[in-house]
Amino acid sequence: MQQKTLLIECPDSKGLIAQITNICYKHQLNITRNTEYVDPLTGRFYMRTQLEGIFNDETLLFDLDRALPIGSERSLVGNDRKKVVILVTKEAHCLGDILIKVFDGSLPLDILAVIGNHANLQQLTEKFDIPFHFISHEQLSREAHEAQLMAKIAEYKPDYLVLAKFMRVLSPAFVKQYPNRIINIHHSFLPAFIGANPYRQAFERGVKIIGATAHFVTDDLDEGPIIKQMVTNVDHNYSAQDMAKAGRDVEKNVLSKALQQVVEDRVFVHGNKTVIL
Amino acid sequence: MQQKTLLIECPDSKGLIAQITNICYKHQLNITRNTEYVDPLTGRFYMRTQLEGIFNDETLLFDLDRALPIGSERSLVGNDRKKVVILVTKEAHCLGDILIKVFDGSLPLDILAVIGNHANLQQLTEKFDIPFHFISHEQLSREAHEAQLMAKIAEYKPDYLVLAKFMRVLSPAFVKQYPNRIINIHHSFLPAFIGANPYRQAFERGVKIIGATAHFVTDDLDEGPIIKQMVTNVDHNYSAQDMAKAGRDVEKNVLSKALQQVVEDRVFVHGNKTVIL
Amino acid sequence: MQQKTLLIECPDSKGLIAQITNICYKHQLNITRNTEYVDPLTGRFYMRTQLEGIFNDETLLFDLDRALPIGSERSLVGNDRKKVVILVTKEAHCLGDILIKVFDGSLPLDILAVIGNHANLQQLTEKFDIPFHFISHEQLSREAHEAQLMAKIAEYKPDYLVLAKFMRVLSPAFVKQYPNRIINIHHSFLPAFIGANPYRQAFERGVKIIGATAHFVTDDLDEGPIIKQMVTNVDHNYSAQDMAKAGRDVEKNVLSKALQQVVEDRVFVHGNKTVIL
Amino acid sequence: MQQKTLLIECPDSKGLIAQITNICYKHQLNITRNTEYVDPLTGRFYMRTQLEGIFNDETLLFDLDRALPIGSERSLVGNDRKKVVILVTKEAHCLGDILIKVFDGSLPLDILAVIGNHANLQQLTEKFDIPFHFISHEQLSREAHEAQLMAKIAEYKPDYLVLAKFMRVLSPAFVKQYPNRIINIHHSFLPAFIGANPYRQAFERGVKIIGATAHFVTDDLDEGPIIKQMVTNVDHNYSAQDMAKAGRDVEKNVLSKALQQVVEDRVFVHGNKTVIL
Repeated sequence: MQQKTLLIECPDSKGLIAQITNICYKHQLNITRNTEYVDPLTGRFYMRTQLEGIFNDETLLFDLDRALPIGSERSLVGNDRKKVVILVTKEAHCLGDILIKVFDGSLPLDILAVIGNHANLQQLTEKFDIPFHFISHEQLSREAHEAQLMAKIAEYKPDYLVLAKFMRVLSPAFVKQYPNRIINIHHSFLPAFIGANPYRQAFERGVKIIGATAHFVTDDLDEGPIIKQMVTNVDHNYSAQDMAKAGRDVEKNVLSKALQQVVEDRVFVHGNKTVIL
Repeated sequence: MQQKTLLIECPDSKGLIAQITNICYKHQLNITRNTEYVDPLTGRFYMRTQLEGIFNDETLLFDLDRALPIGSERSLVGNDRKKVVILVTKEAHCLGDILIKVFDGSLPLDILAVIGNHANLQQLTEKFDIPFHFISHEQLSREAHEAQLMAKIAEYKPDYLVLAKFMRVLSPAFVKQYPNRIINIHHSFLPAFIGANPYRQAFERGVKIIGATAHFVTDDLDEGPIIKQMVTNVDHNYSAQDMAKAGRDVEKNVLSKALQQVVEDRVFVHGNKTVIL
Repeated sequence: MQQKTLLIECPDSKGLIAQITNICYKHQLNITRNTEYVDPLTGRFYMRTQLEGIFNDETLLFDLDRALPIGSERSLVGNDRKKVVILVTKEAHCLGDILIKVFDGSLPLDILAVIGNHANLQQLTEKFDIPFHFISHEQLSREAHEAQLMAKIAEYKPDYLVLAKFMRVLSPAFVKQYPNRIINIHHSFLPAFIGANPYRQAFERGVKIIGATAHFVTDDLDEGPIIKQMVTNVDHNYSAQDMAKAGRDVEKNVLSKALQQVVEDRVFVHGNKTVIL
Repeated sequence: MQQKTLLIECPDSKGLIAQITNICYKHQLNITRNTEYVDPLTGRFYMRTQLEGIFNDETLLFDLDRALPIGSERSLVGNDRKKVVILVTKEAHCLGDILIKVFDGSLPLDILAVIGNHANLQQLTEKFDIPFHFISHEQLSREAHEAQLMAKIAEYKPDYLVLAKFMRVLSPAFVKQYPNRIINIHHSFLPAFIGANPYRQAFERGVKIIGATAHFVTDDLDEGPIIKQMVTNVDHNYSAQDMAKAGRDVEKNVLSKALQQVVEDRVFVHGNKTVIL
């Protein structure tokens, strides 16, 4: 008995669920979990179906393709662990949390490599027997630096890039290489405090709650589809540094929760939004 | 175009979703929202399907009954507002919140009457032109008091009874009249602090979080299926009275959120648990 | 035995707490609760002291004034209930929550009157035997409308104005009449989604958390000192209307929590921030 | 300029704050932060005062001792990092979180050693160059095992013992050695689900929220003074295993937050409660 997940995204039409589940039934596949969503504004249909049985991928997909409307996207994914490359700068908390969770088995993914534009996290990474590549941006143009990053990443062929407090803005040319496959943690409750030094901004504004946002990276800085947000309370006792410190716990938690949803193939992207099934 | 919700609960079997959605399709009903759940331990299947179209209830249910396995329960509910009778004692916050929400249209239900074993809330209830019945328990045996309550409730034929801080324990004989139709708010984060004076218990224990629980009432005191729980932080500055006060906000919020889910036909009960679709 | 609260705000200097508490001791007043805060950036000292005893206000304040540095503000407030006038437009949830809480005694303040620029909430207000004044803005310039509002408010001499979903922007001239005495509920998690229709903005952005903010009103729209913020989770299932509905519960809760802190004389304002002791 | 924290706990009496802050003032010490609390039920006074200046500990404490009532406890602590020994069994998440936070400097304490009754976490501990001692309980009586633990702990003279998912109940004899110095993480929202396998219990009960509790260990199992509690939402989709997994994130967060408060000397214990200043 194998387990696979069927992911479908297409224009909505009457009878879609019946047609899709019929095909699964005909292939003698048992549905262990099924979730759908129709966006009432766009008329877009999303479905995630966990299946169990003996799979003939080719004929199953062939039958689906005949049934699904034009403009459909579908995929049948096995439960192989997703492969990621992590980009970091200096802060250890997000990387550390992912390392521990992968180490203890609670986050089922493979970290192929960690790349830093500073060398600070080399020691931590190598404790877990994961290759660390130090690719400094100093003395380099953005293009030259990103070319080095892309060359190194290409060696690993990751499913996803994770920006675990990577403090550099990526160019559209870079982002285009990995559409909806770069996950960033932004250290604010977006869209509040876009841009640099959000904890300083939050402090200046005197907010009573701070947060963090995990999102896919698009060309528009801090404007990509949001996967997960979490917050924590602060008060007048918090300096900007205290807010940053309290925020670090939120950041690591929200990033690893977002990664969990991504590696479980729960996250659909449409426009600048996510549908999480 | 009408809108109805199909509720199905039955033993799981292969192809169930396909069969059910096929029948809907055959009846030219559009599925606007569909949620299912299979309990992996009990093998019980739950499905809630929002449908849109021209309904022939009789033939639709006939087709479903032929398709569904033995031991199925199904119903097709229109979107009439649910009718409730509310039982209270002295505290105004839960009743008040429901009155306001019904008044402003955000909680779509009809309050047929409020019954109190004290008269304190008569004035508040009548402000909203809802009948209030004062049925004192004093000088009466439990049986005699409950007989009076049941007689009065029977006049109204409610879909649900809501215990909005009704501080009397109901007998099994009473509860049996309204299986899974009595919703209570318990002023603790069950199963912590079962029984009397939970805020006093919470205070004595020195907890840092208190909560409240909305649940269906069963014979076992405080042991019925939980619908919703919410919590709030407290600290050493809170006296037992302060905890009770902080708790009142949680209580009213959790009760009205639970009612919202119930009146939207989202809550299935199986054994002492709820499945909320 | 009387109970009063001493509020002091002044430039910090060595020995301040000793001097102040000495004076209280000399006056044979017992400190039942004391909280101080020094803002490390501005060097501003804040102190809130709950006192119990026989008060001679004049000599106590005289002694304090001799001891406190230049630039101090101090007040000694009894525990009279604060008097408020509430301004509303059409939505009932915030007003309703305050009405119920004042009715059941959990929010210790006196509502002198409710003023609406629409008449929708007249019926609700009058249920609680509180005067409602309908002052339409139609056919009037902003100045003319505000002049009518101010004239009516002046009749009541309130301690605070509460904007309970009053959907009009107040002019600087109006705001200047009530410095740090106008409390507004903004239907977003400020500073995200400043301005009109924040739930629509939140929906467009695809956020996973929405919130509300209670703040003092200053000349800068949505930029006044924040008193309290609260949030709730949303997901892709929420339409803009669903977000607004979920937000209403947050709005009413955050507004009444902020009012609670204000009427307990806990909220100090300095610049565009609050210190809550 | 040195920084120290003065901790005082004593029976309340009039003028205490004035007397204590006067003494600090006389010693030319600047109060950078001061918090007090009087328990209204026990009449117990707690005060935590952060001081800055040139300290003569002996004369300062001498002056305080003359001023404080009988039954006072006071201490003047420098800001040396607290030293801890961590006890573990098999689960990595709590230990891992502490290791990362100490590594990146966000949790200011020194881990002297980790002791496990299983060897599973030896590899993880040693990655961070911290000694790991495997002291199996197998083939040993509880007394014999605890004797070995105590002997090993005694070599390190820690300020605190941290039970980071140490799955053995400690005897009263052991606990007595470290009064209010053993911090445990209990994997439930105490007092719900005392005892073994709380996630299984939570699952059986069908709760909608689970939590974790950090507390000092006393003779009564799971009854010690609570330092911190945190919760997370669950629903019918969660198996007992899913709840345990969701709970692990809560556990690690609540334990490290509690440790943070303990190492900052904020936590007072009185009876079975904590006062956190």
